[in-house]
Amino acid sequence: MQLGMIGLGRMGADMVRRLTKGGQQCIAYDMQPAAVEKLKPDGVAGATSLQDLVAQLAKPRAVWLMVPAAVVDATLEQLVPLLEPGDIVIDGGNSYYHDDIRRGNELGARQLHYVDVGTSGGVAGRERGYCLMIGGEVEVVKRLEPIFATLAPGAGAAPATPGRAASASASTSTAEQGFLHCGPQGAGHFVKMVHNGIEYGMMAAYAEGLNILRHADAGKHAREVDAETSPLRRPELYQYDLNLADVTEVWRRGSVIGSWLLDLIAGSLVSDADLKNYTGRVSDSGEGRWTVAAAIDEGVPTPVLSAALFARFSSRGEADFANRVLSAMRHDFGGHVEKAAEPGHGPKT
Amino acid sequence: MQLGMIGLGRMGADMVRRLTKGGQQCIAYDMQPAAVEKLKPDGVAGATSLQDLVAQLAKPRAVWLMVPAAVVDATLEQLVPLLEPGDIVIDGGNSYYHDDIRRGNELGARQLHYVDVGTSGGVAGRERGYCLMIGGEVEVVKRLEPIFATLAPGAGAAPATPGRAASASASTSTAEQGFLHCGPQGAGHFVKMVHNGIEYGMMAAYAEGLNILRHADAGKHAREVDAETSPLRRPELYQYDLNLADVTEVWRRGSVIGSWLLDLIAGSLVSDADLKNYTGRVSDSGEGRWTVAAAIDEGVPTPVLSAALFARFSSRGEADFANRVLSAMRHDFGGHVEKAAEPGHGPKT
Amino acid sequence: MQLGMIGLGRMGADMVRRLTKGGQQCIAYDMQPAAVEKLKPDGVAGATSLQDLVAQLAKPRAVWLMVPAAVVDATLEQLVPLLEPGDIVIDGGNSYYHDDIRRGNELGARQLHYVDVGTSGGVAGRERGYCLMIGGEVEVVKRLEPIFATLAPGAGAAPATPGRAASASASTSTAEQGFLHCGPQGAGHFVKMVHNGIEYGMMAAYAEGLNILRHADAGKHAREVDAETSPLRRPELYQYDLNLADVTEVWRRGSVIGSWLLDLIAGSLVSDADLKNYTGRVSDSGEGRWTVAAAIDEGVPTPVLSAALFARFSSRGEADFANRVLSAMRHDFGGHVEKAAEPGHGPKT
Amino acid sequence: MQLGMIGLGRMGADMVRRLTKGGQQCIAYDMQPAAVEKLKPDGVAGATSLQDLVAQLAKPRAVWLMVPAAVVDATLEQLVPLLEPGDIVIDGGNSYYHDDIRRGNELGARQLHYVDVGTSGGVAGRERGYCLMIGGEVEVVKRLEPIFATLAPGAGAAPATPGRAASASASTSTAEQGFLHCGPQGAGHFVKMVHNGIEYGMMAAYAEGLNILRHADAGKHAREVDAETSPLRRPELYQYDLNLADVTEVWRRGSVIGSWLLDLIAGSLVSDADLKNYTGRVSDSGEGRWTVAAAIDEGVPTPVLSAALFARFSSRGEADFANRVLSAMRHDFGGHVEKAAEPGHGPKT
Repeated sequence: MQLGMIGLGRMGADMVRRLTKGGQQCIAYDMQPAAVEKLKPDGVAGATSLQDLVAQLAKPRAVWLMVPAAVVDATLEQLVPLLEPGDIVIDGGNSYYHDDIRRGNELGARQLHYVDVGTSGGVAGRERGYCLMIGGEVEVVKRLEPIFATLAPGAGAAPATPGRAASASASTSTAEQGFLHCGPQGAGHFVKMVHNGIEYGMMAAYAEGLNILRHADAGKHAREVDAETSPLRRPELYQYDLNLADVTEVWRRGSVIGSWLLDLIAGSLVSDADLKNYTGRVSDSGEGRWTVAAAIDEGVPTPVLSAALFARFSSRGEADFANRVLSAMRHDFGGHVEKAAEPGHGPKT
Repeated sequence: MQLGMIGLGRMGADMVRRLTKGGQQCIAYDMQPAAVEKLKPDGVAGATSLQDLVAQLAKPRAVWLMVPAAVVDATLEQLVPLLEPGDIVIDGGNSYYHDDIRRGNELGARQLHYVDVGTSGGVAGRERGYCLMIGGEVEVVKRLEPIFATLAPGAGAAPATPGRAASASASTSTAEQGFLHCGPQGAGHFVKMVHNGIEYGMMAAYAEGLNILRHADAGKHAREVDAETSPLRRPELYQYDLNLADVTEVWRRGSVIGSWLLDLIAGSLVSDADLKNYTGRVSDSGEGRWTVAAAIDEGVPTPVLSAALFARFSSRGEADFANRVLSAMRHDFGGHVEKAAEPGHGPKT
Repeated sequence: MQLGMIGLGRMGADMVRRLTKGGQQCIAYDMQPAAVEKLKPDGVAGATSLQDLVAQLAKPRAVWLMVPAAVVDATLEQLVPLLEPGDIVIDGGNSYYHDDIRRGNELGARQLHYVDVGTSGGVAGRERGYCLMIGGEVEVVKRLEPIFATLAPGAGAAPATPGRAASASASTSTAEQGFLHCGPQGAGHFVKMVHNGIEYGMMAAYAEGLNILRHADAGKHAREVDAETSPLRRPELYQYDLNLADVTEVWRRGSVIGSWLLDLIAGSLVSDADLKNYTGRVSDSGEGRWTVAAAIDEGVPTPVLSAALFARFSSRGEADFANRVLSAMRHDFGGHVEKAAEPGHGPKT
Repeated sequence: MQLGMIGLGRMGADMVRRLTKGGQQCIAYDMQPAAVEKLKPDGVAGATSLQDLVAQLAKPRAVWLMVPAAVVDATLEQLVPLLEPGDIVIDGGNSYYHDDIRRGNELGARQLHYVDVGTSGGVAGRERGYCLMIGGEVEVVKRLEPIFATLAPGAGAAPATPGRAASASASTSTAEQGFLHCGPQGAGHFVKMVHNGIEYGMMAAYAEGLNILRHADAGKHAREVDAETSPLRRPELYQYDLNLADVTEVWRRGSVIGSWLLDLIAGSLVSDADLKNYTGRVSDSGEGRWTVAAAIDEGVPTPVLSAALFARFSSRGEADFANRVLSAMRHDFGGHVEKAAEPGHGPKT
């Protein structure tokens, strides 16, 4: 099947490569001509402009956008006038599903079809395949199946879920192949949004646990005794020097907490046991925020997912003023003076 | 290698089967003679009493306890007088590592060796193998390696971690085989404790995320307008009927949040989409509590792990009095009256 | 000064009484004529319709809406066509500040002035006065000062803040009188929204603390020993029967946690030590949700305020499906079976 | 009544002054003779050693320790041999109630009486009086009432709680005077511990709320658009410059969130609107940790109190390693590179 791809960054370029290798025909375009050139050795046709891209595609066209969420609307503004009724626009980036619903209505008014695809898999996706969560009209999603099936990992990527073959879903859903039509427009990015919210929570669970293990030697470091600090009552209980590269490695086999994220951590710790390559300022690209906002709208409690989100905010210093308010209160009611960070006696980071 | 096993519940019996199948020689004992009988077809030798068990073992003996944490001390009280210097006692259950340190000292005073083993793998362990986190003396742990190697999943159970083969750990550690000597006595259960703390956090991340997905149809259910309840401002954003069995199935292939826990959820939802088999009273068997307590001792922030723990407490009604305090305050400052749970209009559970 | 008041519920009626007693001239209107009648003995003039209300007011008019947030727009739709350029509409209810900004623009296009007032004080406000947080145009807010000053508690309601008299604010701000022009339209409800968010956090802090005190006798209740439940390791530490009415009473004098909310709790516990009058289903009327949503937009971490919000959601059973997901996982990996709530052995609520 | 006071720091010295002014007879001792000298002008008798102190006291003696929790046991080791059966030792500091129970037993074996007193009030206590939470034997606590009554604020410090006069408690409890016999040994510090836990939660509620208000101008600061950062979708909603000194001042009158802590914040902000005097490294002196640990033992959910505690840990950099783990994962699955803190574009702290 033929597909136009707009946006050849990390994700877009690899998806084009996977599609081409899988027998689909891609016409690739990027604002940077060099990005288009880079795909030529893989046998990918390039376009020099949006006009050129649209001209090269047979009708009804299918155009996939793989651009930062913040520039999707600007891209659509240029692209949509070039399209004709029956054409399909797919947004495979990290758009907010609110925008999908709006865009679906806007494009629908012009008899264009809009499909939103939440794409998970990251830099490993080119080889492993991408997990695709899809929102849009039934017939339109159906029409794109060859594309989705090529991008997705396929049924063989995981052992069959016991009992699933006999279930109603098995015959009607493509979930086992690694792509799923979740519902109408926005449903794909909604499911991807919550997927990322869960990802934040899982990541934080590992990170907090490893932080506890790393400080299992706390009893070896004498702390100053003063009225400002709680002493460690039983230092004999915290005398362990744990090798986190080994611990995460052993958890990869047979434990309840095995996962792909754990595989990645084990890999990081092999080469950089103290993670000195990182400073600990953790970005968030939106989905975690939107997940908690959706939970609040629905009235669903998400103490874990929100705690994970807020830990990222705090990692960037966003709690600083709140902390100064605490220090001011402590000073005013108890005469407490802030302790300076002691060089060499700070937290074992 | 020869091993005496005390406690033939769910875990103990399966471990004996795996050991026997793997060529190790087990003498099995349980307070319930029927449990011993049940293992006979698998070619496992049985003991009729602790005395009998000890008598059948060649010196220096190795005895593995696989009993509830609450009865370990009582069992040791009977067992220890029967043992001789040089014998090894292994606690493979879910003991608190504080107890390991104490027991290690107590047994050490009698020239007995104490080894603590945190065992993960659950009911799947018999086939998949068990992930073993071990604390104890270096030489003693070394002596038991044939047992650990047979119980563990082995290196083939997961792809090699990139870069690990070239690292220092690779040559000195058995982590890749699925068992690890973590440190002195207590270190095994310490690492297992934190493992379970992480497990709580991961489980809660999935559970909260799925709860959001389940309520993605919130806009379809009109809520009464009154001063007590916040209305849904944009019901058009919550019109999705998501099939959670399919969503979890698609996440199993290529997504960032793939894991064994996710595999299990996907399996549960296939046969019971609403999870009507469960009431939602979630037990906790101690490790989550101990993990947070250790974090507090160390001064390590664990907002996610503690939120997961407290959600379990709340699931059992333990927040009820606190909630009544809130309602009392709301009544007294604002004249707010509690809304009753409306039959048929309650939360979509 | 003359003021039209629309909405004579709990809050509106008491505000009219306080204004009238303080020498302001109110014309009161409510959809329920009986509510208007009830104010006649207090010397309040009534109106029989919005037209009648508008006709009785001298130009430029000032009309205060004290209606549920959900009906403000509907009321404005009827009221606005009756008004003339230069008239002022005040929304004193619990509107979302997003709506204030929109309404301010809409009314401004008709040369009407819109003022938003966050009002705190609850049922005690009639006597104590109301704390008013105000958003709107400088000149317009200035014009309404006699109304605000009468509704507010006045400077005498709290001892002067040390140092404030000498500060720049003291001469320009009316904060010490209990009302404050916070900024342009929406600023009043924004500040009130965060005020309520803080209120949620404080309330939860008291509620959780009292719940701990209430269970300080946990060591007296033997718990069943099984593999599903963590036993209390040191029951001798939890042998206290605390009288919470006395504890909250003693905290009212000289402690760091004294507050009006604490006064209310102490009052509730005097007559109903177990708070049997309440079931513990805690409503939330929107501001707590909006506070957390604003924090997320701003990237400000609010772990405490969100935990307080989610505890309310959970109190209404909204975590049930998530909890069932947890139970399903526990069953599938560990064979754990849910424990039923035992009659008579449940949590001490 | 006569009382020996050991420890003349901030709290101890002021308590001696208040007792002396209130007609009680104090003999004061401190390891620093200068601290004793400083009290002479207030008419306080001093002691030059523990022996001297004990010698000056009439039997049966009452000795109050007001020393850091970490040195109570060392002080008792010296003091106890000097005392005689029937003497009373009072620990008025911030001891862990576990220690009270142990000490009560140890001293009881020597026929000495041990009383634990949780003392709240801080630097303001000398004038306002101290809120006293007391644990110990009934008769012994009774004997000390003159001391407690003088230290406490007295009934006049707060308006009577409606309905309390008619309640059973009113006749049997001294709570209204600002001191309370809570239960047997440890009960005083248990109640004080939870008091401080609540304090942490309340403080965090204010701090988080003020942080939201401070960032209400977020829409004025353009953020870079990239794939790492979630842009602010509606900057027009965050255009407020709020004066926090004024906002906290207005909340002091008539609002639901009025409290002594709020009074202190309003005072701090008058002179230092940006709280530049503080760095935001917030200490914790133990009670918050113990509160959460007790909640965990009891199985009581405390999401708010624990979130407040962990925010303090994080303020001291204790989350750093966990954050680096998050960054490592983000790099490995998505190729995300950490963003540096941009000078001049960091968080508005």
